[in-house]
Amino acid sequence: MERSDRTLIIIGGKEDRSNNKVILGEVARRVGSGKLVVTTVAMANGTDQLFEQYDKAFRSLGVKHLYHLEINDRQEATIPNKVRILDDATGVFFTGGDQIKITSQIGDTPIFKRIREIYDDGGVIAGTSAGAAVMSETMLVVGGDEQSHVIGGAVRMAPGLGLVDGVVIDQHFMERGRFGRLIGAVAQNPKNLGIGIDEQTAIVVERGNGFYVLGSSAVYVIDGTEVTYSNIAEEDLKKTLSIYNVRMHMLSQGDRFDLINRVPRQMRGRAAEKLPEKEEEHSAQPA
Amino acid sequence: MERSDRTLIIIGGKEDRSNNKVILGEVARRVGSGKLVVTTVAMANGTDQLFEQYDKAFRSLGVKHLYHLEINDRQEATIPNKVRILDDATGVFFTGGDQIKITSQIGDTPIFKRIREIYDDGGVIAGTSAGAAVMSETMLVVGGDEQSHVIGGAVRMAPGLGLVDGVVIDQHFMERGRFGRLIGAVAQNPKNLGIGIDEQTAIVVERGNGFYVLGSSAVYVIDGTEVTYSNIAEEDLKKTLSIYNVRMHMLSQGDRFDLINRVPRQMRGRAAEKLPEKEEEHSAQPA
Repeated sequence: MERSDRTLIIIGGKEDRSNNKVILGEVARRVGSGKLVVTTVAMANGTDQLFEQYDKAFRSLGVKHLYHLEINDRQEATIPNKVRILDDATGVFFTGGDQIKITSQIGDTPIFKRIREIYDDGGVIAGTSAGAAVMSETMLVVGGDEQSHVIGGAVRMAPGLGLVDGVVIDQHFMERGRFGRLIGAVAQNPKNLGIGIDEQTAIVVERGNGFYVLGSSAVYVIDGTEVTYSNIAEEDLKKTLSIYNVRMHMLSQGDRFDLINRVPRQMRGRAAEKLPEKEEEHSAQPA
Repeated sequence: MERSDRTLIIIGGKEDRSNNKVILGEVARRVGSGKLVVTTVAMANGTDQLFEQYDKAFRSLGVKHLYHLEINDRQEATIPNKVRILDDATGVFFTGGDQIKITSQIGDTPIFKRIREIYDDGGVIAGTSAGAAVMSETMLVVGGDEQSHVIGGAVRMAPGLGLVDGVVIDQHFMERGRFGRLIGAVAQNPKNLGIGIDEQTAIVVERGNGFYVLGSSAVYVIDGTEVTYSNIAEEDLKKTLSIYNVRMHMLSQGDRFDLINRVPRQMRGRAAEKLPEKEEEHSAQPA
């Protein structure tokens, strides 16, 4: 496989695993006849049941070579037998759970080095929920749901796996009211583009320089390039954030985003036709 | 009183009624020695208990002339005895409840005409929650919490009282995850600026052409002037909204916004010094 094929599929959580499976279908399509490893490193308990769900889903989508990589502590991430599960893999899927479990247990281990190689060799690395958050250099950890960002607020950030540069990713985005915390992350350093991904929705990052949207809900891009003022550096930690002139794009299936030039555009022609039917599970009823 | 003093105080809900009372304090300060009428027209039940809370709060803030205007159906809004409660009033406060109750019961009645006169004569009209939503020409009614806007989604809009032009107001903003529905409203017609007000937070609109922020959380301004593309007019009602190049400002106490030129700026000098201490009830802990 060529290096230029490398792909990240970053999923906002709750992707469909039993009906249309639009998003998992894209993972399967890209893995093709290759080998897919599903890792439940983000989870402490119930890993077998969760793997079974994905096993069933991916097999129904035609994936033939499917393996489970379970890692319960950092020491396990160095065991040759565990690393060997990733031999010849062309795809890795991170389930949901706790993003700190992922980074603290595999960061800078032979397991991660191997995953990085799979990606650089043109593989597909996918992750949902916690598995989505770890894709960026800086990841959002806990706090800040359904509230506006306070300068000294409870949102914690931690170093992620760094598979995609220059972005901070948040998931379960509109469902958990996370606009405030993502804009707080962008205010801290506008070099990072904020990308908020709704449930049942994913971004497919191709060659690290752009993405398109897949799934039934929305992806929000928060661009701080033109910000003229923010009070984020103020000493009063109880002060609510102020930030002027943020550029924002709300994207849905059929939209692309150029990460280099930070511009959205519609998919047209053959690119758009290749998109699967949008899933219908998304309800328009109020919660 | 001069016409140029006319003021709207538009509150995102859950304003403090028993401690610092920063926001109600501003209502009281502007009413001064005048007469304040609290109307519970938005509520069907429990109006007496609600009025008592405001009565206690406003009296503790020095308001001496305080009256309760209760309206249970549209016919009552035409009764001279009810209209007379507003005689000589210099301030009117709309409590929370149901915004459709307010507009359907007093829209185009002698009660509303009198309220409009009070405003135009330089009075202060304040409203919280449902009482905030009714201030604009178009108001958001129900639906769309914690989800991204779908073109044929469940958000309903209705004509408001129209005391402030060119804006759509939403309240309980970050707390109820209403970003999606407000951006949907702006997409429908970007001539309207979207203003999302958090709980315990208010905008003070002076002379109808600008506002400043008061209270402990944030106010979001969504400006669609520069939008280059949106799919809002598509026929597929299940499609999730796409919209490119929205300008967004997140404002907190100490910020002003010019509604004519659509630009934010910091309050400085005497204007900033007149601001009360920000309330401390706002918690930085995750929900």
